[in-house]
Amino acid sequence: MGHVVIDVMPKTEILDPQGQAIAGALPRLGIDQFADVRQGKRFVLAVDGDVTQEHLAQARAAAEKMLSNPVIEDVVSVRVLEADGR
Amino acid sequence: MGHVVIDVMPKTEILDPQGQAIAGALPRLGIDQFADVRQGKRFVLAVDGDVTQEHLAQARAAAEKMLSNPVIEDVVSVRVLEADGR
Repeated sequence: MGHVVIDVMPKTEILDPQGQAIAGALPRLGIDQFADVRQGKRFVLAVDGDVTQEHLAQARAAAEKMLSNPVIEDVVSVRVLEADGR
Repeated sequence: MGHVVIDVMPKTEILDPQGQAIAGALPRLGIDQFADVRQGKRFVLAVDGDVTQEHLAQARAAAEKMLSNPVIEDVVSVRVLEADGR
């Protein structure tokens, strides 16, 4: 079974309150080395057999039409899931 | 500015209603090649300068302590953000 990964993030110019809340809370865990945190969405789509160019094209269409809001989000990556989970 | 990416996904044995809702809706867009869809979270943490091993260790601690629920989610990847957005 092959997998396609789609990553969607808030546009950089858009305020990300969730990310800011996390950035504000991390120091309470003693984690203080991060200047900024942004939270987005990660989708993994399974296909029978290996991933083909057709699968990647359909995944991009799904990302742009359904899985992201083009006004406030960017589809930053549509790729084949690698063995190491990237 | 360097960036660390953290990917968090629902554990495979856990029901993912959001992913199922998407999988059920895609055929209405004529997208019918995906056997399954799972939705997780993607975090991007910014650091001043280049990412170090210390940053990656702190990011993993943040992922395990705050950014995921170990009962229902897995931290699937903690890595340096690559130029192509992966």
